[in-house]
Amino acid sequence: MIYYKVKKEENQIYLIEDKLDKRYTSKTETVFTQCNGYLGVRASYETKMLQESRGMFVTGLYHKAGAHEVSELVNCPDIIEMDICINEEKVNLDTCSLKGFRRSLNVMTGELETIVNCDLEKTKGICIKTRRFASMKNRHLICHMIEVSSEEDIIVHITTGINGQITNSGVTHFDKVEARVFDKKYMHTENSCDDGQVFKVMTVCSSNRDASQEPIFGLKRRSIYGNYEYTSKSNEAFQFFKYSFVDTGTNENIADEETIKQVLGTCEKIGYEELRREHIEAFDKLWNYAKIEIEGATLEEEAEITFAQYHLFGMTPSYTSEYSVAAKGLTGEGYKGHIFWDAEIFIMPFFTSVFPEVARNLLQFRYKGLAGARDKAREYGYEGAMYPWEVAKTGKEETPLYAALNIHTGKAGKVWSGIKEHHVTADIIYALWDYYKMTGDQKFLLDYGYEMLIETAIFWCKRATFIPDKNQYEILDVIGPDEYTEHIDNNAYTNYMAYENVKIAYETISALEQELPKIYMEFAKKYDDLEDKISEWKLFLEKIYLPKANRELVIPQDDSFLSKKLLPNIEKYRNSQVKQSVLLDYSRDEVVNMQVLKQADVVMLLNMMPHLFDEETVKKNVQYYEQRTLHDSSLSYCAHAVACAEIGDIDLAYHFFEKSLEIDLDTNYQDSIDGIHSASLGGIWNCVIRGFAGVKSHMNYVEITPNLPKKWKKLKFYLKVKGQYVRIEINKDKIILKPENDIEQKVSFKINGQVYLLEKELVL
Amino acid sequence: MIYYKVKKEENQIYLIEDKLDKRYTSKTETVFTQCNGYLGVRASYETKMLQESRGMFVTGLYHKAGAHEVSELVNCPDIIEMDICINEEKVNLDTCSLKGFRRSLNVMTGELETIVNCDLEKTKGICIKTRRFASMKNRHLICHMIEVSSEEDIIVHITTGINGQITNSGVTHFDKVEARVFDKKYMHTENSCDDGQVFKVMTVCSSNRDASQEPIFGLKRRSIYGNYEYTSKSNEAFQFFKYSFVDTGTNENIADEETIKQVLGTCEKIGYEELRREHIEAFDKLWNYAKIEIEGATLEEEAEITFAQYHLFGMTPSYTSEYSVAAKGLTGEGYKGHIFWDAEIFIMPFFTSVFPEVARNLLQFRYKGLAGARDKAREYGYEGAMYPWEVAKTGKEETPLYAALNIHTGKAGKVWSGIKEHHVTADIIYALWDYYKMTGDQKFLLDYGYEMLIETAIFWCKRATFIPDKNQYEILDVIGPDEYTEHIDNNAYTNYMAYENVKIAYETISALEQELPKIYMEFAKKYDDLEDKISEWKLFLEKIYLPKANRELVIPQDDSFLSKKLLPNIEKYRNSQVKQSVLLDYSRDEVVNMQVLKQADVVMLLNMMPHLFDEETVKKNVQYYEQRTLHDSSLSYCAHAVACAEIGDIDLAYHFFEKSLEIDLDTNYQDSIDGIHSASLGGIWNCVIRGFAGVKSHMNYVEITPNLPKKWKKLKFYLKVKGQYVRIEINKDKIILKPENDIEQKVSFKINGQVYLLEKELVL
Repeated sequence: MIYYKVKKEENQIYLIEDKLDKRYTSKTETVFTQCNGYLGVRASYETKMLQESRGMFVTGLYHKAGAHEVSELVNCPDIIEMDICINEEKVNLDTCSLKGFRRSLNVMTGELETIVNCDLEKTKGICIKTRRFASMKNRHLICHMIEVSSEEDIIVHITTGINGQITNSGVTHFDKVEARVFDKKYMHTENSCDDGQVFKVMTVCSSNRDASQEPIFGLKRRSIYGNYEYTSKSNEAFQFFKYSFVDTGTNENIADEETIKQVLGTCEKIGYEELRREHIEAFDKLWNYAKIEIEGATLEEEAEITFAQYHLFGMTPSYTSEYSVAAKGLTGEGYKGHIFWDAEIFIMPFFTSVFPEVARNLLQFRYKGLAGARDKAREYGYEGAMYPWEVAKTGKEETPLYAALNIHTGKAGKVWSGIKEHHVTADIIYALWDYYKMTGDQKFLLDYGYEMLIETAIFWCKRATFIPDKNQYEILDVIGPDEYTEHIDNNAYTNYMAYENVKIAYETISALEQELPKIYMEFAKKYDDLEDKISEWKLFLEKIYLPKANRELVIPQDDSFLSKKLLPNIEKYRNSQVKQSVLLDYSRDEVVNMQVLKQADVVMLLNMMPHLFDEETVKKNVQYYEQRTLHDSSLSYCAHAVACAEIGDIDLAYHFFEKSLEIDLDTNYQDSIDGIHSASLGGIWNCVIRGFAGVKSHMNYVEITPNLPKKWKKLKFYLKVKGQYVRIEINKDKIILKPENDIEQKVSFKINGQVYLLEKELVL
Repeated sequence: MIYYKVKKEENQIYLIEDKLDKRYTSKTETVFTQCNGYLGVRASYETKMLQESRGMFVTGLYHKAGAHEVSELVNCPDIIEMDICINEEKVNLDTCSLKGFRRSLNVMTGELETIVNCDLEKTKGICIKTRRFASMKNRHLICHMIEVSSEEDIIVHITTGINGQITNSGVTHFDKVEARVFDKKYMHTENSCDDGQVFKVMTVCSSNRDASQEPIFGLKRRSIYGNYEYTSKSNEAFQFFKYSFVDTGTNENIADEETIKQVLGTCEKIGYEELRREHIEAFDKLWNYAKIEIEGATLEEEAEITFAQYHLFGMTPSYTSEYSVAAKGLTGEGYKGHIFWDAEIFIMPFFTSVFPEVARNLLQFRYKGLAGARDKAREYGYEGAMYPWEVAKTGKEETPLYAALNIHTGKAGKVWSGIKEHHVTADIIYALWDYYKMTGDQKFLLDYGYEMLIETAIFWCKRATFIPDKNQYEILDVIGPDEYTEHIDNNAYTNYMAYENVKIAYETISALEQELPKIYMEFAKKYDDLEDKISEWKLFLEKIYLPKANRELVIPQDDSFLSKKLLPNIEKYRNSQVKQSVLLDYSRDEVVNMQVLKQADVVMLLNMMPHLFDEETVKKNVQYYEQRTLHDSSLSYCAHAVACAEIGDIDLAYHFFEKSLEIDLDTNYQDSIDGIHSASLGGIWNCVIRGFAGVKSHMNYVEITPNLPKKWKKLKFYLKVKGQYVRIEINKDKIILKPENDIEQKVSFKINGQVYLLEKELVL
C-alpha cells in the first residue's frame, strides 16, 4: 500500500498528501524532491517545521571534511526556507490552526504544490499556495512562487534568502562564505571548500505587487536574507516569486556574477509561468521517448512507474561524463552520495535502451575512473583494473575502511564491502556490453571500451586462484551482492560475472586482431604481453569454476552456503517494518553463518544471464532462495521480479514488481528519509521492459519475449536501437514495431524466437 | 521594565516567565542559563522548539575552525534535548494544547524549573515538570530531572542522549567524534579537535520506576541516544533523571572513562535532591560573602542584583588562571567567547573586593598573556607589552582583521578596534593596582605584577609621540572605549589611563630600588637599561598631555570632538529598541564625524578617577556627554551611574542604575539572544558598592563615602580587605564595620573623610 493518493488530470499525474501527518515529513521531503539531474532540493515546507531535514545537493559537489571523514555529497545552503508573517504573526504549520492541507508532486514535471488553509490567532481565513520546480531548461535554476490570500486586508512580511548554516548532519564543508547583495536586489553567497571547490548561489525575489518599502537586507553568519513587506487586499491573491541560480566548480570554471544576474533578470522578466512552460517543454522532449503507456494498469501503477522515471531523470547527470548516479540520487545525505554498482546494473538499462547518449556518459565516467581502479588493483596486489566498491567524484575508492564504533564494545568493525565486494568490476563491463549491443557504438569501444575490457580481464585472471588439485580457477574470499555473507569462496554471482567479463574481453580483443589489426597493434604496443594475456584469458575461461545446479537443481550461492543452518524464525524478519531487523537479534557473525540473505545472489544471476539456465532450474532457485531472503536490500524485489518474468511465472513476477513499486512510496514513514532508493527506482523500469516486455540486447538483434501481467492489455514504449528510435507496442495478441524515422542502419529484432529485420512498421 | 516576574520564597529569589511567549525563547535561553564558571548550558526547553537555539559552552574550549575563521568558544554537543512521547504522541510546546506554563530561574541556585500543563490529542491532563542545575560542588556535572504525571495511566517513552550535530551557527569544531555506551548504561562521546583538544561528555539516565524494557541505544551521526520506556499510573508522578559529566582537555589531562563512570554512578546512587543539596551548600559558601542586603530596595531590585551576581559566578572560571571571563560568559556564541577589557574593568571589581583569590587568577591569566602582548607590541613597532583587544585562551590577539563584507559593496572594512583600541593595556594595570590596594598582595607583585608594570610602562612611552612644538607627549590615532569615534588624537580616557599606568610603574619600581634592592637588581639584570627606562617614565609623566576642562568645564573627549557637528535627531536613536540604529541611517564615516557617542569616554574616566576632578566639572561633563550618548554599549549606563553617584547626584545615578539593572531582563526580546552582557552585570555590582556605597581602594585604606538612593534604608555587604572579611552596614545615619574574625593584619578605612584603624566592630 502506498501512502500517497494518486490523481491524473490533463495527462499530468500527481502524488498527493492530503493531510499533514508530521511523521511523514522527512519521507515526503525525500520523495517529493525537485531534481533535474544537476541539483536536488528536498521538498521541505517553506516555513520552518519541527521535524524538517532540509537539503540541497548538487551533482559532483563532493568534499571530505577532514581526516576522519569520507568524501560526501555536500548539503548546500538552503534557499527554500521563508519566514512568512501575516499582520506580524508568523505562519507556521506546527502552530497555526490548520483548516486544510494538500501537497502534491506532479511526477511529469517535478513541480511541487502545497496549499495550506489556516487561521492565525489574529488573522483568519488565510490561504497560502506555494509551487516550485527545478528547471530542465536551465538546470542551474530553481523557480519558486508563493501566493497568499486572505479574507481580510493583510500586511505580509516575507524574510528569505540564503541560509548557509546548513550542514551534513553537523559537519561543515565550507571553509569560507562570502555574502553579498548586488544592485540592491540579487542576494548572493559564494562558499569555498578547502580543496578549491566553490559553490555559488544567487537569488532574486519579486512580486505582483509593489513593495510597501525597499527590502531590508541583512547578514547572519554564513547567511544573507532580505525582508520584504507588502500589503494585500482581502480575497486578492498576492504573489511572491523567488528565482535562484546555483553553480559549482572552481574559480576558473564557475559562472560569474554578471552572467548569473542576467539569467535571474530574465527570470524576473518572463515570470514563473513562462519559466514553467519552458521547463515542461524541455522535460516533454524526454517524456516523449521515456513515457511507458500501459493499458490495463491501474492509475496507481502508472503513477508509480512515472514517479520512478521522474527520479531517474532527477538523479542522473545525463549531460556530463564527470559524475555518475548516487545511491540516493540528489535527494538526501544517505550513503554519502556515493556511487555503487547500482548505477550500472539498475539505473543504466533505462538509459542504454532509451537515451544511450546518457549511458555513454555514465560509462565514460567509469573509463575516467580507470586510474583509480588500477591503483586499487595494485594496492591489493593484483593487476589491471579493480573498480572501487564506492566512488564519489574521482575514481578512487571511497568506502570507509572502518564502520562506526560498535556502540557497546567500542571497537570499529572493518567495512568488508570496500575490501572484498569485487563483482562491481564485472558489473561495469556487463553494462558496457549491454550498451554496445544496443547501440553498436564502435567508437566508444575504440576510445574507451577496449581498454576497459583489457584492464578488467587482466584483473580477473590475477584475482582468481588456480587450484591444482581441482585443475580449476576459483575466486576465493569475496562478498557477493548479498552482504549477509562475507568471506565466501566461489560466489555464484561473482564467478559467473567474472567469466562473462573475461569472455567479452577475450572474444572482442581476439576478434580485433582479425578485424581491426591496426587497433590491435596499438594495444599490443601498450600491453607488450597482450598475446600472453589473451592466452591467459582463454585458460581462465576454460578453467574457471562456475557453480552448477545440484541434484535438487539448486545453484549454490557459494561453497559453504548450502551447508549452513536455516534461520528458524525468518518470517518475523521478513515482515518487519524495520530493515535489517535480524541484526537486532543476531550478531553479524551469526547471520553470516546462517542461510539468510539480504538479497539473493543466485536470483540476481538468473536475472542477468537468463540464457544460461533452463526454466525449471530458474523456478527452483527463485523458490529456494526466496524462502531464505529477507529483502533487506531495496535491490532485491526487482531482481526477483525480472527473474520470475523471465520464466513466465508472471503472478510471482507481478507480486515482486508490486513490492518494488512501493519501496519509496509505502506507508513506512521511517524509510526513505535519507534519500530515495535510486537502484530500486531503476529496477522498476527493468521489471517492466526487461522483465514483462522481455527486452534483451544481443549482438545482432534485440530480443522481445513479452510476458505481460494478466491485467495489462497493452504496453507501449520506445527503444533506441543502433541510433534509431523504435516504438514498441505489445498487445496480448500482437506486437507492433514502428521505427520513428526512416531506418538508416539495419536493426533486427527477435520477437518470440523469430528474427526480423526492421525496415518499416512491423505487425506480428 | 523587566519582562520577568519576581518571587521570593524561603530566602530564594526567582525570575519567572508565566506564559509562553515564543518571541522570548532565545532571550530566556540566555538569561536563564545554568552556569557555574566551568560550563554554561542554555535554558532551552527539553523537547525541541521551533525558535530554539541550543548551546553548551565550556570555559577555555576555544577552537579556530579554519583559515577564514577566528578562534571561538565552541558550542558543544547538546545533552538537554529529550524526545518525550506519551502513549506514542510527542509532547511538544509548539503543537500541544497548552493549559499552563511556568518557567523560573532560582537566581540563588541557578536551578531552572519548568512546569507544563497540556493536553495531547489522545491523552489529556498531562503535567511535565523539569528541573536542572549545573553543580557548584562538582563543576563538571549537570543534573536534570523530569517528572511526568497524568490523569490517565500512561506509557512514557523518553529518547535522549548526546547530540553532537550542534555547531556554532553552521561551523563544526570537532574533527572526529566517537560514541559509546559503557556497561549498557553510560552514553559517552569523545569529540576531538584538529589541534589536540578533546571534549568528553558522559551521561546516564535513571528513574524512580523500573523500565518496561531494557533501554535501546542507537547512533546517529556524531550522536548517541537511548530510548527508555516506562509505564506510569494516573496521578502518580513518574520521575526520570539524567546526570551528565563534561570535561575538556587533551588526551593527557582529561578525565578517563572509569573515573567519570564512578562520578555518575555516585550521582545515580545519591539522587537529584541530594546532589542539589550539595550544590546549594557549595553555592551558599559563596553567597555568604557575596549577597548584598538592601533594606528599602524593591523585590525587583533585589532580584536583579542577585541575578547579576549569579551570572558573575556563572561566567567566571574562578578556580584557574588558565582562562578569563568572556564578553557573553558561557551563555551564547556572541563575540565568539572572546575576552575584552570588560573582564578587568567591569567584572573584576566584585572579585577583587569580595573574592580576591579569584581576581588574582584573572590577573595571572593576563600575566600569562604577556608573551602575546609583547608580540603584539613588536608587531606594531613598539616595545614592552601591548595587550590585545580580544583574546581567547592564549594571550595572542584574536580580533579579526576584517569585518564581514559590506553587504552592498562587497568590501570588507578593517576592524580598527584590534589595531587601535589601546586602552586595554592600561585597564589591566588599573585592575592590577586596585587588586593590590585591596589585598596588599606583595607576593603577586613579586611573582607577576612588577613585570607587568615594567612591560606596560615601556609600551606607553613608545606608544606616545613627542611633539617638540608643544613640548609634550601625545597619544595619536587611537580608539577610546567609545567606538563611534575612530582614529582620534589624545583620547581623554586613553591618555589619563596611560598616565596612571606609567605613574604606578614609576612609583612602584622607583620605590623598589629603595625598599627591595635585591628585587630591583634582578629586574635591572633582566632589563639592562632599567634606569634609563625609569627616567623615560618620569619624563613621560611630566610631559604627557592630559586634556583639561575648557572654559565651559567640558573635558574634550579627544582633540577633534568638540569641533564636530551634533547629530540633529539624536532622541530617535536614544529611544530605539534596536541597538546601533544610528548606523542604519548614517554611514560609519558620518557617525565618526559627529558628536554622537556609543558610550561616553569622559564619563568612564570620571568613573575611574573621580579624585582628579571637582564636583562641578564632573556634573558638567556627565550632563554634556549624556546629551550626546546613545548608550548603544551595555557598558554605558553603569559607568554613568557610578560617575553620578560619585558627585552625589543620586537621582541621576539611580536613573542610570535602573537602566543597568534591566539590560538583560527587559522586554526587548531581540536583545541578549546571543548571550548575556557580562560587563553590564559586573557593572551592577559596581553601581551598588563602588557607586552608592562609595567604596574605593587606596594604598593605605579603603574609602567608604556612601550616597545611598533615597529609598534605600540600609545596605549590607562584605568586603575582603588585606585578607580580612569585613561586614559593612550602611545606614542612613550610621555605618557599622564588623570584622568577621580577629583582625590579624592592620586594616584601615576612611569613612566620610576620616581614617579609622579597624580592630573590632566600629560604629560611626
